[in-house]
Amino acid sequence: MTVIDYRTDPASYRHWRIEFDGDVAYLIMDVDQAGALNGGEYELKLNSYDLGVDIELNDAVQRLRFEHPEVRCVVIQSGKDNVFCAGANIRMLGKSTHQQKVNFCKFTNETRLAIEDASENSRQIYICAINGNAAGGGYELALAADHIMLVDDRRSAVALPETPLLAVLPGTGGLTRITDKRKMRRDRADVFCSIEEGIRGAKAVEWRLVDEVVPNSKWKDAVAARAHEIATRSDRPKGAKGIKLTSLPRAIEADRVTYSHVEIEIDRVRGLAAVTVRGPAAEAPVSIAAALALGDQFWPLTVARELEDAILHLRSNEPAIGVVLLRTDGDAQAVLSHDEFLLKADGDWLMREVRHYLKRTFKRLDVTPKSFIALIEPGSCFAGTLAELAFAADRSLMLIGTREGDNRAPAAITLGQANFDFYPMGNGLTRLQTRFLGEPQLLDTLKGRTGQPIEAEEAAELGLVTLAYEDFDWNDELRIMLEERTSFSPDAMTGMEANLRFAGPETMETKIFGRLTAWQNWIFQRPNAIGEQGALKLYGTGVSPTFAKERV
Amino acid sequence: MTVIDYRTDPASYRHWRIEFDGDVAYLIMDVDQAGALNGGEYELKLNSYDLGVDIELNDAVQRLRFEHPEVRCVVIQSGKDNVFCAGANIRMLGKSTHQQKVNFCKFTNETRLAIEDASENSRQIYICAINGNAAGGGYELALAADHIMLVDDRRSAVALPETPLLAVLPGTGGLTRITDKRKMRRDRADVFCSIEEGIRGAKAVEWRLVDEVVPNSKWKDAVAARAHEIATRSDRPKGAKGIKLTSLPRAIEADRVTYSHVEIEIDRVRGLAAVTVRGPAAEAPVSIAAALALGDQFWPLTVARELEDAILHLRSNEPAIGVVLLRTDGDAQAVLSHDEFLLKADGDWLMREVRHYLKRTFKRLDVTPKSFIALIEPGSCFAGTLAELAFAADRSLMLIGTREGDNRAPAAITLGQANFDFYPMGNGLTRLQTRFLGEPQLLDTLKGRTGQPIEAEEAAELGLVTLAYEDFDWNDELRIMLEERTSFSPDAMTGMEANLRFAGPETMETKIFGRLTAWQNWIFQRPNAIGEQGALKLYGTGVSPTFAKERV
Repeated sequence: MTVIDYRTDPASYRHWRIEFDGDVAYLIMDVDQAGALNGGEYELKLNSYDLGVDIELNDAVQRLRFEHPEVRCVVIQSGKDNVFCAGANIRMLGKSTHQQKVNFCKFTNETRLAIEDASENSRQIYICAINGNAAGGGYELALAADHIMLVDDRRSAVALPETPLLAVLPGTGGLTRITDKRKMRRDRADVFCSIEEGIRGAKAVEWRLVDEVVPNSKWKDAVAARAHEIATRSDRPKGAKGIKLTSLPRAIEADRVTYSHVEIEIDRVRGLAAVTVRGPAAEAPVSIAAALALGDQFWPLTVARELEDAILHLRSNEPAIGVVLLRTDGDAQAVLSHDEFLLKADGDWLMREVRHYLKRTFKRLDVTPKSFIALIEPGSCFAGTLAELAFAADRSLMLIGTREGDNRAPAAITLGQANFDFYPMGNGLTRLQTRFLGEPQLLDTLKGRTGQPIEAEEAAELGLVTLAYEDFDWNDELRIMLEERTSFSPDAMTGMEANLRFAGPETMETKIFGRLTAWQNWIFQRPNAIGEQGALKLYGTGVSPTFAKERV
Repeated sequence: MTVIDYRTDPASYRHWRIEFDGDVAYLIMDVDQAGALNGGEYELKLNSYDLGVDIELNDAVQRLRFEHPEVRCVVIQSGKDNVFCAGANIRMLGKSTHQQKVNFCKFTNETRLAIEDASENSRQIYICAINGNAAGGGYELALAADHIMLVDDRRSAVALPETPLLAVLPGTGGLTRITDKRKMRRDRADVFCSIEEGIRGAKAVEWRLVDEVVPNSKWKDAVAARAHEIATRSDRPKGAKGIKLTSLPRAIEADRVTYSHVEIEIDRVRGLAAVTVRGPAAEAPVSIAAALALGDQFWPLTVARELEDAILHLRSNEPAIGVVLLRTDGDAQAVLSHDEFLLKADGDWLMREVRHYLKRTFKRLDVTPKSFIALIEPGSCFAGTLAELAFAADRSLMLIGTREGDNRAPAAITLGQANFDFYPMGNGLTRLQTRFLGEPQLLDTLKGRTGQPIEAEEAAELGLVTLAYEDFDWNDELRIMLEERTSFSPDAMTGMEANLRFAGPETMETKIFGRLTAWQNWIFQRPNAIGEQGALKLYGTGVSPTFAKERV
């Protein structure tokens, strides 16, 4: 199997280009129909997309935030005549395994949410200018924008034809965003999702599907004017200099993936991976200028990028690995000094970007279908930002005291401000708030312990770790736990984790991953979609699908 | 196929008995192991349950509310020595079709929620006294109670062993209630759900799994004392007289089911059913005493019972019917007069019960996997309570004007107070609030129109109906819509409706039906659970399941 690589850069894009006009960037989708991710198996006609197209989009959204402080509004549009985007490529879906379909949908959902995160938190506000038909995933991409414009040319429409055409759901956030973001009436949503050809013109505005329609003759000017107007709402800095996201160095060996500060070791026999994140080599920079000079070598940014790539790599390329151990290695004070720096520099646009990038990376962990077990041992640095790894884990084990022959201090968790507000989960709460939903008063106790190393027995007492063992028991307890975990049904673990990780409130984001995605995954298993007579299999053959009529 | 009948009464129970002690009722689970729903296919050992057991539980919960105003606390306990309840019967699950499994889980979830609704809204507060092991669905039943007691006999434990033993989820609310109701820490929940033998004694309290443990020697007295103490928190009336829920008359013919005020007509060729609800024959009673004298013939109660049975019948016994038309027939003023009566009598315990019963019935519609289309025509009475049917529907069609040869007045929708607060959905909002999430100001406009008949064109204008047609177009438009709807994949429709019906906030209840249920349904399709080598198939054979290791 070819390794799916999430690393790319604009010079390598085959499907997107970016054009700049002062404070506006045009992100132009112009899919190379011969550029499918795994070669010639399907053609990416009509600006339809596969994972490869979305990897470039994700990269572009990311780079615009870091490399272009001057951009205050991003316009997504099509580089093709007469079509905006036909959505996910159906042939690709038809040929994909269940795991590939689910992984594809997850990543595209994360990218749409990253667009919304950029509008909200980077004030790089996205608008979508639909110049042609936007169907299925094409319209779902538009739904990620803050403002949707549709050309009024008597042809261009927005549509979610997945259910009538393909017997699957508009699962890249479509159903959730039309009701919860666009706040479309549910009965109209029901009608809209049944109309293959979609809705256009004034009715699309009336039904809240788009924000405005513009005659063809005025289209280009209207889009530019709207973009510049929306740009004025942004608080991005004047005259700032961006930093370049350089190529992420990574070495892949048979059972090891090595980055500068992150390492994955794989034990295929046991179905395990261990991810180790290394703390910074030194204290934080002395000034924002000094941090800027570090570029993407500024430690928090390096870690965000490397950890993100490691997670995506494990998801796509190591599906048989079900359990991931999370370790850290380094100096807790150096981690906390970087957190402190991020906190003090919070008004700075770039430091804000770094913090939100870390937030998104931790969120990727939350929706990754692997069991995460944090191991907190001497030499580790589960402090502040890196302590989030322990709180994102399904379980954490902490060593009590020291190990014979190891003169390092006992393991400690050190809380920092970062744990109390930097990194909300998709449910809108921090991981500590979610963890202590039943004992909110504990959060105050914990805040009072900020900056103080908390060793194993006390950490267990305070509920910060799941289990604490002395060296004498550690190996056996860990071995038994891992043997047990890897013996369970991977599906049951995925379903269990998808529920237990998200206590408390639900948001549009958690509804997309919880409700919508789960139903879509179910449908992706049903013969009516994927059977030999199913709609996904027969699409494009001219043969109509045959559906079992039973309602479940 | 034998018809599954949801109607029962205490004299017919095989699995439960009720004992009364002043203001406390003991609801005792004592499952007849030879009493499986479809005869001898499996034995209901160890107080395990199937749909038949739960039908009796649902009936008991319902009757306690209406027939026993004096009961202020209900204690669920086991009538067997050494076991509380082993959960859903695994052999039954192994032999069930996918549709049967899903339908079974849905109904049991509704029953658990009805228990919580009784505690909260009838102030008939449930406690669970676990005298023996409570495993899987057994502990999930306990989780529905407000207060959980566990005997401390060094054996009795609570457990959710579904994932390790069966490769499925604790899907009857289990995962959701431990994190969102019991507010257990997610890492402990993760550990708990992996321990086959469960957790007992003081640790069960520390982990928030139960509220108290009591030594065996003091058990009976402690349960009685706790029950009477909790009974004092109730506002149920002193000296009131309950009403008897008499046997619900129903006639089933090949393509028709007839109740006194509800009728189902089935068109098997087209895959359609039409449900007609008839309004009251007269104005509301003149006093609460007069309503009481009507017993279960009080129209709102009759409708709640009959419509509920009709919905359950369609779900269980007519899975091939995918689309249900909703009609009403009668006098709008008579409906509104009953609503008015319910509103004025809101302080009365019995009228409160009636209103909550209607609420629960409408909620059953919301989670029923059928497409509902309300047809609003001359002679109908979509007013107040019955207008909820139109708002619960996926779409509504309204006839403009009159029909040739029909001298009845044009169809109208008449809003009443009932539509603005009587019947919240699972998401905590009324159907109108959910409908107008994007235009909340419309709710004020609509409140101003309370009591005034709104005819088709205006109703469409106000967003109360989806489509309005004149007689000339009605038949064709409806025929085309129904042909289209019934041609779609039933699975895609179920998934679409499960998303579009619940805009806005999520609650524990919607999380159970949306997130947890959807993941469980997915797992119920996966070979690791249901394949020849899957855990559900092999359970009890002594052969270990073989799992595909891929993580999805």
